[in-house]
Amino acid sequence: MAEPKAVQQAEDEEALDPRRVAAILDAVEAGDAPRLTELLEPLHAADIADLLEQIGPADRRDFLRLYSGEIDGEILSEIDESIREEVIDALPRDVLTEAVRELETDDVVDILEDLEGPQQAMILGALEAADRVAVEQAMGYPEYSAGRLMQREVVVAPEHWTVGETIDFLRNSDDLPDQFYHVILVDPRMKPQGYVTLGRMLATRRDVALRELKEDSFRTVQATEEEAEVAYIFNQYHLISCPVVDENDRLVGVITIDDAMNVLDEEHEEDMLRLAGVGDDSSPADGSIATARSRLPWLIINLFTASISALVISLFEGTIATLVTLAALMPIVASTGGIAGTQSLAVSVRALATRDLTSSNARRVVRRELGAGLLNGLALALILSLAAFLIFGDVTLGLVLGMAMISNQVVAALGGVLVPLGLNRLGLDPALASGTFVTTLTDVLGYLAFLGFATMLLL
Amino acid sequence: MAEPKAVQQAEDEEALDPRRVAAILDAVEAGDAPRLTELLEPLHAADIADLLEQIGPADRRDFLRLYSGEIDGEILSEIDESIREEVIDALPRDVLTEAVRELETDDVVDILEDLEGPQQAMILGALEAADRVAVEQAMGYPEYSAGRLMQREVVVAPEHWTVGETIDFLRNSDDLPDQFYHVILVDPRMKPQGYVTLGRMLATRRDVALRELKEDSFRTVQATEEEAEVAYIFNQYHLISCPVVDENDRLVGVITIDDAMNVLDEEHEEDMLRLAGVGDDSSPADGSIATARSRLPWLIINLFTASISALVISLFEGTIATLVTLAALMPIVASTGGIAGTQSLAVSVRALATRDLTSSNARRVVRRELGAGLLNGLALALILSLAAFLIFGDVTLGLVLGMAMISNQVVAALGGVLVPLGLNRLGLDPALASGTFVTTLTDVLGYLAFLGFATMLLL
Repeated sequence: MAEPKAVQQAEDEEALDPRRVAAILDAVEAGDAPRLTELLEPLHAADIADLLEQIGPADRRDFLRLYSGEIDGEILSEIDESIREEVIDALPRDVLTEAVRELETDDVVDILEDLEGPQQAMILGALEAADRVAVEQAMGYPEYSAGRLMQREVVVAPEHWTVGETIDFLRNSDDLPDQFYHVILVDPRMKPQGYVTLGRMLATRRDVALRELKEDSFRTVQATEEEAEVAYIFNQYHLISCPVVDENDRLVGVITIDDAMNVLDEEHEEDMLRLAGVGDDSSPADGSIATARSRLPWLIINLFTASISALVISLFEGTIATLVTLAALMPIVASTGGIAGTQSLAVSVRALATRDLTSSNARRVVRRELGAGLLNGLALALILSLAAFLIFGDVTLGLVLGMAMISNQVVAALGGVLVPLGLNRLGLDPALASGTFVTTLTDVLGYLAFLGFATMLLL
Repeated sequence: MAEPKAVQQAEDEEALDPRRVAAILDAVEAGDAPRLTELLEPLHAADIADLLEQIGPADRRDFLRLYSGEIDGEILSEIDESIREEVIDALPRDVLTEAVRELETDDVVDILEDLEGPQQAMILGALEAADRVAVEQAMGYPEYSAGRLMQREVVVAPEHWTVGETIDFLRNSDDLPDQFYHVILVDPRMKPQGYVTLGRMLATRRDVALRELKEDSFRTVQATEEEAEVAYIFNQYHLISCPVVDENDRLVGVITIDDAMNVLDEEHEEDMLRLAGVGDDSSPADGSIATARSRLPWLIINLFTASISALVISLFEGTIATLVTLAALMPIVASTGGIAGTQSLAVSVRALATRDLTSSNARRVVRRELGAGLLNGLALALILSLAAFLIFGDVTLGLVLGMAMISNQVVAALGGVLVPLGLNRLGLDPALASGTFVTTLTDVLGYLAFLGFATMLLL
């Protein structure tokens, strides 16, 4: 087995390049804490978190023993959930307390979500009272909702304030969020009326009222809205931040684009892994056992669906016994159908995610898939029939292959769009299970059509 | 064939819900321009662009005839490249001129990239002289580079300026970008020295110097950097905007997070479609012919790779003739191997994209895949052998199935990680072609192992 070597990667002095990783592991092995700190010092928290995920469990244990005193809140919030418990367990109590107190409430919520009861209680206990209340309120919203994603630290002003009044107010605030991009205009009952970008505010004379500066892009989301929907809205409407309101339309928080980008990225990961039949709990930091476990369920399901193909083939054992060449040729139709189904499926799942496929155009898209399946079926049938004729000198065999190919390509193209549309209509994730359904369909139909036509025409 | 009906979708009064789409199509059919304008008025440009992509070519032609006078720059820049030429051709010259003059230079570049020469010249001609120079300079950078992505409108200040001086300067500028989130600090040769968030500036007294307010998160990218790398940097380091520099480290523009989010989304689309063997030029707005064309190349390639499987099987025609049941059972091993390969592949391609799989941990990840393949191979072999024994009452047949399953699962898991690692090392996109390689491997090896062991042990 060839050992993979250099994976291409941009290298700069602050990046986590292979040489630095090697030096870090050397320092860990030597138990050299000052050297480790020196090597980690220029790295961003996100890179240190990546490092912790990439090294093996034994190295991670040694690393944490040497470095745990310097792990701050930012590293904690960057770390993948699969190793977060392990890292938190390795931290001295006072380090943990200080680390979580630095964080914005949305980051604390993000950490808490993946922890067990005792660790949750420990972290909640480490927070200041006001933050604890805020975090507990956020945890009251459903998982994967806007309420969990938002930060509660908001910057608001009444519409009638002038630019000057607002700037003076901001200069006197000592508790502004780390990042904010808009001042949200609220009425006396805290209902958002619009927002003003900071750029616009900085560029405007002090005596202008905020209500004159409202942005067209303003929209709000409900705290119970799903985070995937929030990510879609940010991407579709180019938002930078979006106020979150409760069921009475009162402001309860704000979501910023960096969190939305993160959700978009996770949604993509989910789509890609689900389409491939990998469990949601898989992580790059997993060992062999966890990796195997996240993949076994769909493999077992496939074992059963593949048995349907076997059953179909066994119905034609008489035909195969008469003409054994059929056994060699039959996977061609099934396999090409599988590829076509996967193509149609990937396009459809993506189009559903980006709302390019909706109930308004579903009929047109299905017709298009039908046409595309037919066209490619004809093209492939032509090539395959010709090759079969040239190799076996048998026109009828070519005809059987061609007819099976056309019907399977059409079924593949249609299955690839109808299965995810159907799942979506049932309120299920179209990426989930689609792959297995569609390839089962194309396998079964591929064998059935080929052996069926062969039985009719060749025997 | 069942006709898909309601695709679930959040509906609000401003959204592109199915009822509004139907009403819009009615207005288009009736040639009712005022009604069409009324229906489109509350919609965001991005939704109008989506609408144009979703309706059929004939409706689109009628729509554009009725509405072309009101298409603005924002709609133009939201429209998918696959129908952009069509839309631009439908616009009156003066509408086009006004539309492109509204846009930031980065959006004009984005539009120009996908157009043919004459249309490019027409749009360049419509720009004001200063903008035209800026756009032409951007077009001088490589495709998919930071230089193409950036906007050239930047807000800069020297480090020694105070907050007050900067605010006064901004208030006197009449040409600020629509969106900006930082003031970039530059030295006299325009080399960026850091940046200050607008929030920090608003919250600070007038007499404080900007250099006191610099952000830790500051980093720059080269104009020639690939846009995929830029998207990675934004997501990894939670950037909101990032200054772009030329080869002399001089500031030439700035990239904002909404553009980076867009690139991230497109990169994901590319990975997903390439893994499934769909050509890059495919679009949801395509008709049957374009759809078929974008998928045919990989289908033809698969026709050849499937022929290798057929060739392998044909070597064992004697074995199959003796025991026809083998023909029915052989797809089980191949198919389950294909699923396992796809799983390992999806995880590896994703991990390469997020830099969770690097040269530092490639060896560990390959070992993990080997372990996972072995574990799942054992589990599946146990189930399959037991089922075979119960159904056929033949211990040796169960053994043959089990041995073939274990070897194919191991090959699948290893192939799923080694193929993308290899492609990546060759400087190719690991998502491209991996699927075909890996399933060919698992098919060929699945048939070979099963029929080979059967020949050795059963005959």
